[in-house]
Amino acid sequence: MAMEAAFIGIDWGTTNLRAWLLTAEGQSLEARSSARGMSGLDPADFASTLEGILQGWPTDLPVLACGMVGARQGWIEAPYVSLPAAPPSLGDRLILAPASRRVLIVPGIAARDPQGRLADVARGEETQAIGAAAPGPGLLVCPGTHSKWIRTDGPRILDLQTFMTGELYGLLSSQSVLRHAIGSKAQPGDAFRQGVEDMLQGRPLAEALFSVRVQSLDGRLATIDAASRLSGLLIGAEVAAGMARFGFSPVRLVGNPELTSLYASALAQAGYQAVEVIDGDQAVCRGLAHIWNARP
Amino acid sequence: MAMEAAFIGIDWGTTNLRAWLLTAEGQSLEARSSARGMSGLDPADFASTLEGILQGWPTDLPVLACGMVGARQGWIEAPYVSLPAAPPSLGDRLILAPASRRVLIVPGIAARDPQGRLADVARGEETQAIGAAAPGPGLLVCPGTHSKWIRTDGPRILDLQTFMTGELYGLLSSQSVLRHAIGSKAQPGDAFRQGVEDMLQGRPLAEALFSVRVQSLDGRLATIDAASRLSGLLIGAEVAAGMARFGFSPVRLVGNPELTSLYASALAQAGYQAVEVIDGDQAVCRGLAHIWNARP
Repeated sequence: MAMEAAFIGIDWGTTNLRAWLLTAEGQSLEARSSARGMSGLDPADFASTLEGILQGWPTDLPVLACGMVGARQGWIEAPYVSLPAAPPSLGDRLILAPASRRVLIVPGIAARDPQGRLADVARGEETQAIGAAAPGPGLLVCPGTHSKWIRTDGPRILDLQTFMTGELYGLLSSQSVLRHAIGSKAQPGDAFRQGVEDMLQGRPLAEALFSVRVQSLDGRLATIDAASRLSGLLIGAEVAAGMARFGFSPVRLVGNPELTSLYASALAQAGYQAVEVIDGDQAVCRGLAHIWNARP
Repeated sequence: MAMEAAFIGIDWGTTNLRAWLLTAEGQSLEARSSARGMSGLDPADFASTLEGILQGWPTDLPVLACGMVGARQGWIEAPYVSLPAAPPSLGDRLILAPASRRVLIVPGIAARDPQGRLADVARGEETQAIGAAAPGPGLLVCPGTHSKWIRTDGPRILDLQTFMTGELYGLLSSQSVLRHAIGSKAQPGDAFRQGVEDMLQGRPLAEALFSVRVQSLDGRLATIDAASRLSGLLIGAEVAAGMARFGFSPVRLVGNPELTSLYASALAQAGYQAVEVIDGDQAVCRGLAHIWNARP
């Protein structure tokens, strides 16, 4: 039996746009991607940009889109749904975009503090989390520009914490005084592990960052290792803070191999056992299908 | 008795060049400044840039210069002097620059760990510290792009720690996702104090930064307060780490009023008593005179 496309899934983030022809179970039959992320687009550009990437795919298929496309600065705002959230509560609040075909936008999620005030937010990771979550209680780590730690219970999202790790790494490695020390990409070797170790032992991040420059000044840190040390410090600070906040649980790591290899190393060093790695694209496709099937 | 110029003092940093006509006691008779910092100059440019700013001042006066001008990427390298360091050990290691007049460069300082490895470095702040130090044991906090905490005993420099606070603030406030929240300069009011408090209570910096965006999303943090909260978090992280490293001592805060007002607020909040504020320029001029008079 040939598999049939049930809908089109979209992950429309700040810097990228990805599209999949999906079965009802979230299996990808075809995939496309472009660099036309939400940050370069005016609200009036979204409909035509979408038609561009969908060219040649069946025009009668409905579209389900997650990510920053639903932000206030995106195509049309899909207001945050407060945690706990699950496929039905998200499927209940899909927002119809102003397009000639049927395009539904997945809302973001909002964690609230005990006083009911906004404590954290995510857009896109709610879909990834639903697609990647284990049965029963678990913890998801989604590395990226803004890493998200997400506590789940099956497809139910309970709690959320954002770390600006990727953005800090990008700014510090390319624009701060540390850029002089840095000559290659971060790798999960000794220099990375030493950076992680410094943070797990409780050294303050504010104090440790300049060590990348100091250690390179006397040749102790080779140019090839400086990026790894900086990455180890930043990811180590994230893991130490995430561990303090969420404790130990079975962890699933969701993302692309370049980042997940670093995070798997840091999480193992912190004592997280048997971290399972889930491909980020696959998680989004599965999550979109869960939400799609949970529409009222 | 009219006061007489004994030498010319120079503070040549990464982004600025400042010059003073100084008495033997380090009193400024005339001051000049320019934006021709070391980072925009090739080694061949230094001599003519110096003559430019000194135009009209007596050509027979010797020049003593501190700051990044003595870095490897500067005019001529003045190798770091290991701590402990005092005016005589610095005056002993002045480096003669290749210029038509007599120009001496003050060496930077290097802290070493118990294994003798490089632990931290400073250039320019050694001179500021010597000029600002109290009699007897004390702690200097010199805020800036790279803030320095310096432990002193009179004019003897014992220990040193760098924090990249100013550089982090600059990058995060102008180039990260937090820039959308930020609409004015940091002030030492409630939003600043709340940021400092979060850090003094031990919240990890990695976890707290994204709160600037989250709190502005629901209007809880006004545009006018976001810069103050970010500044409070970063300065608070520095103060918490500095306090853990150096403990409580009489503190002298050295710098310009815009920064010292924020740091004075954060240090008081952390429990430092009666912080004394010293003007940064005055400290450099006095320090240059101490080193000048300690030449062999």
